[in-house]
Amino acid sequence: MRAGGSAGATLGIDVGGTFLKAGIVRGARILRQQVEATARFSSSPGAMEAGIARLAQELMVAADGRIRVVGVGIPGLVLYPAGVVQSCANLPRWRNIPLRVRLERRLGVRVRLDNDVNLMTLAEWRYGAGRGAENLVCVTLGTGVGGGLVLGGRLYRSRRGPSGEIGHVAVGELGPRCSCGGQGCLERYVGNREVVRSVRARLRAGARSRIRELVGGRLERITPEVIDQACTLGDRFAQRIWEEAGQKIGLVLAKVVNLVSPDRIVIGGGIAKAGKWLLGPIRETVRRRAMRGLRAVPVVPARLGSSAGMIGAALLAREALEGCD
Amino acid sequence: MRAGGSAGATLGIDVGGTFLKAGIVRGARILRQQVEATARFSSSPGAMEAGIARLAQELMVAADGRIRVVGVGIPGLVLYPAGVVQSCANLPRWRNIPLRVRLERRLGVRVRLDNDVNLMTLAEWRYGAGRGAENLVCVTLGTGVGGGLVLGGRLYRSRRGPSGEIGHVAVGELGPRCSCGGQGCLERYVGNREVVRSVRARLRAGARSRIRELVGGRLERITPEVIDQACTLGDRFAQRIWEEAGQKIGLVLAKVVNLVSPDRIVIGGGIAKAGKWLLGPIRETVRRRAMRGLRAVPVVPARLGSSAGMIGAALLAREALEGCD
Repeated sequence: MRAGGSAGATLGIDVGGTFLKAGIVRGARILRQQVEATARFSSSPGAMEAGIARLAQELMVAADGRIRVVGVGIPGLVLYPAGVVQSCANLPRWRNIPLRVRLERRLGVRVRLDNDVNLMTLAEWRYGAGRGAENLVCVTLGTGVGGGLVLGGRLYRSRRGPSGEIGHVAVGELGPRCSCGGQGCLERYVGNREVVRSVRARLRAGARSRIRELVGGRLERITPEVIDQACTLGDRFAQRIWEEAGQKIGLVLAKVVNLVSPDRIVIGGGIAKAGKWLLGPIRETVRRRAMRGLRAVPVVPARLGSSAGMIGAALLAREALEGCD
Repeated sequence: MRAGGSAGATLGIDVGGTFLKAGIVRGARILRQQVEATARFSSSPGAMEAGIARLAQELMVAADGRIRVVGVGIPGLVLYPAGVVQSCANLPRWRNIPLRVRLERRLGVRVRLDNDVNLMTLAEWRYGAGRGAENLVCVTLGTGVGGGLVLGGRLYRSRRGPSGEIGHVAVGELGPRCSCGGQGCLERYVGNREVVRSVRARLRAGARSRIRELVGGRLERITPEVIDQACTLGDRFAQRIWEEAGQKIGLVLAKVVNLVSPDRIVIGGGIAKAGKWLLGPIRETVRRRAMRGLRAVPVVPARLGSSAGMIGAALLAREALEGCD
């Protein structure tokens, strides 16, 4: 790592719900990384800011002071390029925090900040499953449903606020209220929490499934991973759960396809591990519901896994270095 | 017009369903125009091609041979920049016609071809209700429902096929089959034909409305204009028709807003004359259904009226002249 190993490398930090990950990255290669549990810093915005700064400093020292820009991905609303965090899923008290400027003061180098899904999109586009696309749609499925767009060969951002919010595109005309103020948003059907809740409710209502044995009858232990396990055991109920989720996702993606006619759609995030049970129904629904000429769009799984956010943050830093910023 | 009047002007042609319009345009000013009924040329693709060429030639002569590029808008699927018409609403026999190359051969100047809604979007963005927006959504309401997008300060096009197809975004999960192969598309609810059909059906089923007197009991005479007239007379049934249409349009626009977070939305096209009866419900629905931070997006009527297509075609020609092409 030392002695020239970091030439052309930049530092990327991904502030995730579970882990705070920092890495010195060259291209898609992680030269060195440091991971800490997010919970350690989530007592207050100040603690989180200090935690991010400390991680960055340690890696900057390890890189012999060659790091001149740091990129940071935040799971929330970030004003770009100002680097003001308007709100953050994990830190309810983070409201309009000028995090970019604060980190620059602490670190003495330039800092670039963006939404984590935008950075995951950037990473998959440059080095992952989205390579070579001029127009790309990225979806992350996890606790929430996120989306990012590459349009006309550039990561799409709007100065008015968030964009690519596929999780907040309504599936139907009505539907359950959403925290965004809307109704029937995709996230309200296929977010981790909603899927698990719906499985519990159906099992309580008497549905037959091997999920019951897998959690020893304790329904509160059900997680997306348990549902996947049941799928692998051939459990139709569990498979049907992902089928339904995939259909909802496909319905929304068909709308997105008719709007921006992308070259490719990349599906990532934790829940996406349900891979084959989910991807099939997504593809089928897009093929059935998008416009005839556009429906052949490839829908592929993400490739960079849980490092995508960190790689994307390092890419953001590199763009700043190269003056594309 | 002669003797220098056409300096900096270009020639734009709009192939509409009713009129073929050609104009020498400088900025948003039409210096000279010629209009013919489309029906005169719609016997065959060849007749249409000859008609477009003749109109262009007449105006090129009138401009003292100063025209070096001609822009043409086609109501159909156009491969850009190749200028191949894949299909055209008014000319079912126009299939994969290399119209750009053919017109260039006939006219001896460069020709640029694009979809008519894209060109209307371009015109409203540069000179009309969309001025100054970095990200803009344009909707045209008429026989069909069209859409165009300006994203990141550029007219958005995809090499994969049409884009901005707001008329083919599904409103709900299900709904009537659409000619695009999809289901429940916006166009299937609010296109001119659908609106008129639904009014007739409800009147036949006994609904009370002044529309009945306005057409002397002959329901086949109902047009969007008649519905507007009834609205103006205070007819609640007629007003309710536009309200319902506006709500469907608003539902789809809320989805579009969450995806691209535009600075403004422009509503144009023939049916848009229903102006106040339609715009109110569109705005209310966007405000109720888009994400909290994005819902304040202004929804405004188009400004260039029925000349937008021609002005946009002339703009396309000017872009080619200036080498942005």
